Amino acid sequence: MYKRRQKRGKISIYMYDLAIIGGGPAAISAAINAKITDKNFIWLGQKSQKAARAELVKNYPGLPDISGEQLVWALENHAASLGITQKDMRVLGVYKTGDYFSLLTEGEDFEAAAVILCIGVSSIKCAEGEERLLGRGVSYCATCDGMLYRGKKIAIICHDKKFEHEAEYLFSIAGEVVFSPLYKDCKLAPERGEILIKTPTAFVGDDRLERVVYGDTERAVDGAFILKSSLSPSALVHGIEIDGGHIAVDRALRTNIAGIFAAGDCTGRPYQYAKAVGEGNVAFHSAIEYIAAIKK
Amino acid sequence: MYKRRQKRGKISIYMYDLAIIGGGPAAISAAINAKITDKNFIWLGQKSQKAARAELVKNYPGLPDISGEQLVWALENHAASLGITQKDMRVLGVYKTGDYFSLLTEGEDFEAAAVILCIGVSSIKCAEGEERLLGRGVSYCATCDGMLYRGKKIAIICHDKKFEHEAEYLFSIAGEVVFSPLYKDCKLAPERGEILIKTPTAFVGDDRLERVVYGDTERAVDGAFILKSSLSPSALVHGIEIDGGHIAVDRALRTNIAGIFAAGDCTGRPYQYAKAVGEGNVAFHSAIEYIAAIKK
Repeated sequence: MYKRRQKRGKISIYMYDLAIIGGGPAAISAAINAKITDKNFIWLGQKSQKAARAELVKNYPGLPDISGEQLVWALENHAASLGITQKDMRVLGVYKTGDYFSLLTEGEDFEAAAVILCIGVSSIKCAEGEERLLGRGVSYCATCDGMLYRGKKIAIICHDKKFEHEAEYLFSIAGEVVFSPLYKDCKLAPERGEILIKTPTAFVGDDRLERVVYGDTERAVDGAFILKSSLSPSALVHGIEIDGGHIAVDRALRTNIAGIFAAGDCTGRPYQYAKAVGEGNVAFHSAIEYIAAIKK
Repeated sequence: MYKRRQKRGKISIYMYDLAIIGGGPAAISAAINAKITDKNFIWLGQKSQKAARAELVKNYPGLPDISGEQLVWALENHAASLGITQKDMRVLGVYKTGDYFSLLTEGEDFEAAAVILCIGVSSIKCAEGEERLLGRGVSYCATCDGMLYRGKKIAIICHDKKFEHEAEYLFSIAGEVVFSPLYKDCKLAPERGEILIKTPTAFVGDDRLERVVYGDTERAVDGAFILKSSLSPSALVHGIEIDGGHIAVDRALRTNIAGIFAAGDCTGRPYQYAKAVGEGNVAFHSAIEYIAAIKK
C-alpha cells in the first residue's frame, strides 16, 4: 500500500487508493463496500439535501413506505454503524497528476489512485462561458482564490445561505462588489458595491473574464465567484465526457477517463434510490479492479 | 389497454403489458415498481434459492448486518405488503409473436408486450448440443412433451429433488428410461430402465437427438428430459445475445431484442443484491418507456 503523508506549503496531502466524492445514496453504497472490504479510501462530500426531500418512497426494496428523510437516515446510519462518515467538504477540482488524481478542496488536498464521482445532478445550470473561463477570472472558491482579487472589482453569485461567510470574506478583500444573492432572506450587503438580484446569463472574455452579463444588463469585473454546492461534472473534472447533461459511463460505470468512475443521478435517469445504491456498488467493484490492475 | 383473454385448446392466454420473469431481488424490485405505478403486468418465477443463501450481508444499504435469508424476507415482504407475489411457474420459452411475446410455461401460456428477464445465473452449464437440439428430442418440460415419448426410450437428467414428480410421470409413460438424478438422497428408480449417476457431456444428433454422451459412456435414446430450475438465457429466448456467459445489455438494460430487458445476476457481475435491485428498477423504467412508445 502506498500510503504517504507530506506537507506542501500549508496543505496536507494524503494518498488513498480510492476517493469517493458525494454524500447521497450512491456514495454511501460505495463507501459501505469500501469499508467492509477494508480498502484504503477517503469519502468527501456534503450530505445530499435532495435525497431526503421525497415525501414517500415506496420502491426502495426492503424498506416499504418510508419517507425520503427516513430512508436517508437508514442509509447514513448503516454507514455510521460501520464507523464511517463523509468528510464534509466541497471538492472543487479533480486533476490527473502522474498516475493518480489530485482532489482540490477548500482546505486540504487529497490524492487517490481512483475516484468515484457520486455528485448528483445540479438544478443550477452553468451559464455561457462559465466553464471556459474557470480559473481565468471565474472561481468557485473564495478561500482558494479570494486573495487574487484584493482591491479589485468582482461579481459574487451566491446560491445558498450557507456560503454567506465566503461572500463576507470576499467583501472584506475586494475593492468593489456586484453581489447577487439568489436565495431567499439574504440580509447581507457589501460595504463597497451594489446588490443585483439577477441570475448571470453569460461570462464574457477572450483569455480572461472581462464582464458578466445578467440578461439585459451587464457589469465589467476582474473576477467572478460562483458559490454553489454542486459543480457540473465538466467543471469538476476537465475533459470528462458528458452525454445529454450526464456523465457518460459504460456498464461498469467507467467514464472516458481511466480511473474515474461515476454512480447515481450524475450518470442519468431514472433518478432513483435503488439505481443509485446499485451503481455505487458496481462502481466500487470496477474501481477496485482498476486499482488492482495498476498496482500489478 | 389491450387486455384480452381467450382459450386455445385447454390453454388460457392473457395479454399483459409487462411480464417479469424471475423470483430474486431484481424481479422483486421490478415488480414493486410495476405495482406502485399500477401497470398491467404479470410476474412469473420461482423463489430464488441462491439469494437467501448468504450468511451475512453487510452491503445492502439501509439494512446493515442482515442474513441472506432475512434480506430476502424483507424484499419478499415488501412485495407482499403491496399485495403481489410471483406466480410460482417455470417459464420454458419466450417467443416473439407479432408485436408481443408469448411466454410458455408448464401450464398456462401468457402474452406480454415487454419482458424483463431476471433469471439469475445458473451454475448448471448447458452440455454440448443441448440448446441446438432443444425441441428436437431435448426437452425441459415433462408435462409439455412427455406424451411424445410414450413407449419410447428416454434419458432423464434430474437436477433437483423438486422435479421428482416430473421424473415419475415420465417413468410411467416411457418404454425405457436412463435416469440420472444429480442431487443427493434420491430414492427414485424407474421400473423399466437403469440409473446412471453421471452428468451428460453432449447431446448428439443431426436433425434430432440420437444419443446422450456421459463422459466415457453413452446411450442411444429417442428423447432426453433435462429437469432444472434455471434455463440458460439462450435456451429461454431464441436469438438473445450473450456476452461472456451473461445476457448482453446496454445501460438501459435493453437486450438485442426490442421489448426484452434483463436485470440482476443474469446481466453480469458483480453478483450483488444492491446491483440487482438497482437494475430491476432501471429495467422497469426502460420497459415502460418501450411500451408507451409502441402504444403510440
